[in-house]
Amino acid sequence: MRRKSFESLQCPIARSLERVGEWWSILILRDAFLGATRFDQFQKSLDIAPNMLTRRLNALVDAGLLERHRYNERPRRDEYRLTERGRDFRPVLWTLLAWGNRHFAPEGPSVVIVDGESGELADPILVDRRSGRPLTTPAFRTAAGPAANERTRSRHGMVARSTDGAAAVSARRRDATLPDATPAGADGV
Amino acid sequence: MRRKSFESLQCPIARSLERVGEWWSILILRDAFLGATRFDQFQKSLDIAPNMLTRRLNALVDAGLLERHRYNERPRRDEYRLTERGRDFRPVLWTLLAWGNRHFAPEGPSVVIVDGESGELADPILVDRRSGRPLTTPAFRTAAGPAANERTRSRHGMVARSTDGAAAVSARRRDATLPDATPAGADGV
Repeated sequence: MRRKSFESLQCPIARSLERVGEWWSILILRDAFLGATRFDQFQKSLDIAPNMLTRRLNALVDAGLLERHRYNERPRRDEYRLTERGRDFRPVLWTLLAWGNRHFAPEGPSVVIVDGESGELADPILVDRRSGRPLTTPAFRTAAGPAANERTRSRHGMVARSTDGAAAVSARRRDATLPDATPAGADGV
Repeated sequence: MRRKSFESLQCPIARSLERVGEWWSILILRDAFLGATRFDQFQKSLDIAPNMLTRRLNALVDAGLLERHRYNERPRRDEYRLTERGRDFRPVLWTLLAWGNRHFAPEGPSVVIVDGESGELADPILVDRRSGRPLTTPAFRTAAGPAANERTRSRHGMVARSTDGAAAVSARRRDATLPDATPAGADGV
């Protein structure tokens, strides 16, 4: 193990990364969305070592993102298809794609999101489903949810208080998780 | 190196992962959004080995996501602050958070996104900025952009054609990147 497991942590970001926090896993999902289902298709597209690909595919099956289907008995051959949970990962891929295009494509975008019928460019933005308001700070922030433990509550209480400068500093000084944080850095996850 | 570099690849997802495709990097960014700026704050929050943390912080500085500021000369101490590029990563974290809450929080969410004033729960959804339409398939899909090379064009041409079953199969049979993909698997990244 080159990293500790975050399975026991409450943070939903850490839990997501527990399932897909590998380069390869995310690129395998990307290729699955592009239609790849078979071992050799993933291997050819990714130029990945077979043992590594086997491990990553197994992990994605175990995490419930891909389903294995036998399509041939002799020789035994499986294909891998996105589950509903796997398909639900698309917004993460698309926000990564948009971020990559904004920051790491000096020559212009090589991959874009378009309207499937008109071909018009789409510009992805995260909004609140009900109100339609863009999810930006400080209008929105993260907060401890109903299942939060003490550690999670303390961490997010800190951020909530950070809108008030003085209170934020003293709150942070008392905070065991991120001791002595400076208000300038606080921005709410 | 336990992975090859995707720097040379066109895919904006691969390029993004080149910068943040490490568990630790993403969790460091998460903590930076929560107000962490100093080495010991990150270390305490993440329980990460110091040499690993140093490497990840340096990589995030090199990638332009964090900026290093000296805040003490004797002893020499730096703090790390999110750059504009780093702050622009928030939508990726929030889509990861929402996906984690939907799929890996059987006990209920521990971290949520809320309206900063009313405290009301927000439900993040990716939409097209101009039209406001939800970015779902098949209404939207990825396509080769203006800077795409032949490989990228061929790969995405395949997906574009996959809305038409027969054409998709023959197109895919000719496709060098993902040979013989089955139409059922194609869904557009």
